[in-house]
Formats: sequence, structure tokens, C-alpha cells
Amino acid sequence: MTRRNDDIYDVDLDLGWAIGGNPHGGYLMATVAKAAVDAVGDPHALAVSTHFLRPPAGGPAEVRVEVVKRGRTASTARATLWQDGKARLDMLLTSGRLPADDPSYAANPLPDILSPEECRARQETGATIELADHIDVRIDPRTSLSNGEGIPVIRGWMAFRDGTEVDVESLLIAVDVAPPTVAHLGYRGWAPTVELSCLLRAEPAPGWLAFEAKATLVRSGWFDEESAVWDSTGRLVAQSRQLALVGAPTR
Amino acid sequence: MTRRNDDIYDVDLDLGWAIGGNPHGGYLMATVAKAAVDAVGDPHALAVSTHFLRPPAGGPAEVRVEVVKRGRTASTARATLWQDGKARLDMLLTSGRLPADDPSYAANPLPDILSPEECRARQETGATIELADHIDVRIDPRTSLSNGEGIPVIRGWMAFRDGTEVDVESLLIAVDVAPPTVAHLGYRGWAPTVELSCLLRAEPAPGWLAFEAKATLVRSGWFDEESAVWDSTGRLVAQSRQLALVGAPTR
Repeated sequence: MTRRNDDIYDVDLDLGWAIGGNPHGGYLMATVAKAAVDAVGDPHALAVSTHFLRPPAGGPAEVRVEVVKRGRTASTARATLWQDGKARLDMLLTSGRLPADDPSYAANPLPDILSPEECRARQETGATIELADHIDVRIDPRTSLSNGEGIPVIRGWMAFRDGTEVDVESLLIAVDVAPPTVAHLGYRGWAPTVELSCLLRAEPAPGWLAFEAKATLVRSGWFDEESAVWDSTGRLVAQSRQLALVGAPTR
Repeated sequence: MTRRNDDIYDVDLDLGWAIGGNPHGGYLMATVAKAAVDAVGDPHALAVSTHFLRPPAGGPAEVRVEVVKRGRTASTARATLWQDGKARLDMLLTSGRLPADDPSYAANPLPDILSPEECRARQETGATIELADHIDVRIDPRTSLSNGEGIPVIRGWMAFRDGTEVDVESLLIAVDVAPPTVAHLGYRGWAPTVELSCLLRAEPAPGWLAFEAKATLVRSGWFDEESAVWDSTGRLVAQSRQLALVGAPTR
């Protein structure tokens, strides 16, 4: 990422961060959010709303950032990913400083997930998972596609393969790193994300990130996918919900 | 709401839709969303992401709409509420046509809520609820501020007092109509919303809307509030999560 001027960042979309040739949504969100947070000058993203317009290709692209409001507690920016003269993804991002103290109330503890050693690498029939070269994604076998039929829940772990420690922006990858949970309901096709909103709640401690993704409602192919992410100390660090679209069940 | 030209709608913010003199966040979201959906020409809002910048006053304001992408299945617009030369609220909205068929999967049924007749009008100590003139908000007494201490959950019902039937945009009011649930944890002050993202899942049937609001994590005054709304037939029609801020506990 290179800052060209006050408002534009040049980025190079890495097809190593793709699934089946499409740059991964979480990778795109993390890329655009990094530019927005940098332009504002705040330490952390707090709330990130992303509307996916058109899938970009790999290669050069630009992030255009408009700082909408600067505030003492929180600032807001709009950031848009452009490529070949077309907007690919539009984001509103509110930034500030994440609190470092302990929660005064926490109702969503780390769920029961087998250890990373007991989990299996993310796999899907017929799909190439290019980003597996960059991140190690492990799925609890009790929630993998070969088990857990009928219940659209997937739990697992994520870490960077090169030993990079997870940071706040990498939580935007983690909330979108599970395969579509509606595969458990027979919907096996590509499931493009239409919108994803994410709250970042704390800087993650070093180590594995745990995630849980689940769908609540499927109607005419439209479904929601809700994700929560905990750091290696078991603290809830991110919450998200996305709207996505799949075709008819394939079985 | 009057369309001034392709991009600008004139609105009059009604202080009858306020709480303690501040126009209600749900009312503002519904107002801005109506303008955005009208500008795009789609039948329904599907996903609405709102970042609250500065509280507006009552009176004239304008909604500036930029259509970002028009698509067959979904379109995206950015809509900003301006007043006195300042942006007050910024929104990304994806629109399209809500499905009318039955869900193929639904995991979040209407929870146990006492009937509207058995519930009580929304009340808070020391706060004026101007919008009670427009909407009838009933709180299940088991989750009211005088009960339910320690558990940040509030359930209830909403309907328009003048008999207007609920529509898709009114779901944006319903997801933000509960008093802050963190009052159950001793946080009794004003709790301004910083960001709220909402998925609209179906056109609501006529009649009361049921809602459930709950907080998951409170840290240094930052908290999330998650809402679900069901129509009078018990169908889930909206899902939201907001990030908000309160001061220290007052007890």
C-alpha cells in the first residue's frame, strides 16, 4: 500500500489472497480499512461497514478515502476500492482507540472448539483456496462439511502462515474466513457477500484467532452469516453480520 | 420529504420524533433510507449501514444521495444527512426486492414476549420520550428497567399510534426503539449510537412488531446492542447490531 496523495492509496490486489480466482472479501476489507485508518490517523478501526459492488481482479487498484468527520472519540471515513474506472467495494469506517481494559460485561464466551491441532485445514469440494498459502484456517471437524449436516454453523481457527501476529485489521479477514455455513443446508455454490458490517472490540493478543460463523435465515437464496472472533486469551475481539446470496440447493 | 433534484431530498426533522430533544436514531435512519431507496428506484432496502456523526436539530435538513451502483439483483447508494453545512449521518444502503416466499431455514423464532396488552409503555427515569406521541412502544415487564437487573435484554412491541401499517423502513425504527439495555447494568445515561447496521429480511405483515434488544460486551463505555424484529405472524423481518457509548455506571 502506497499513499499517492491525501485521498488516494495505491494497492496491489494479490491473487494469492483469493478463493477460486476471486480476491477474498475479508482480504479486501482489511486492505481498504488499513488505508482508511491511515488517512484518518486514528489507531484502530472500531466499526466497518462494507458493501460489495463488483468483484475486483488481481493487480493494481486504488483506495479513495474521504474523511467525513474528525472527532475526539471517533472519526468517520468513506473508502472506496476502484479498479479500471469502476467502484468495486464501498466502505464506511468509524475509527478511534480500542479500549484496553477488561470488559465490565461479557456474555459471549469462547465456544467449545477443538484445539487447532485437532482441527482440519479448510477444504471444499471443487474450490481452490489460494489464500491457504497465506493463512492457516482450521475447521473443527464436528462442524466441517462432511459432518454437521442440517446445522449451518462452522467453528475453527485462523493464523498467518509466515508468523505475522494478528492485528485489528486481520479480524476483518477472520470474520469472513469460514466457508459459507449454508453448505450444511445443501447450498454448495459460490456465495458472494453483498454487505458485511463488523465491530472491532479489542486488539487481539498474539496467537490463534478462534471463529464461529452461523446463518440464521435463508430465503430465496438470501442468507445472513453472523461471525464472532475470539483471541488466544478467549476474549471476544470482533462481531460481524453479512448478507450474502446463493443459488438453489445442489442436492 | 420532497425531491429537489436527482441527488437531493429536502426533509423536515420532526422533534415529535425525539427523545429528550434529540431526533431518534431510528427515525433518522428511516428518513434517510426512504430518500436513498427512492433515488435508486428499487422497491426495498436490503442492507443499511449508518454511521452517526453529529446529532441534528429539529427542522429543515437535506439528504444527499449518490447512486454508487445499479444492478439487476441489488443496487447501492450512499446517502448523507446534511444540516447547517455539516454532515450529521452517513449511510451506505443496498437495495433490491425482498423475497416474499417462505424461508427454507429459520433459526431465530419469536421469543417468549408477553402480549402487548400485558406489556407496559416505554418509560425511563428523567427522560422525555417525545416519540411516544407517534409510536406505541410496549416493554415486557419481565425485561423492564425496574426488573431484569443484571441482564441487558429488553423485549417488547411497537406500532404506529395513528394506525399507519408498518413498512420496511419502519423496521429501522423498531431495531432502535428499545431503551439502552445496558441500563440493566447500571449505565443510565444517554447512550449515543455511533454505528448501526441492519439487514431487512422481509416486508412486515400488518400489526404489531415484536423486538428483542441485547448487549453482548461492555468495555470502557463502548457496548454493542443487537436487535431482532419479528412481524405479527412471527417471521423474522430485521436484524441489526449497533455500537454505542455510555458513561460510567451511575449506581
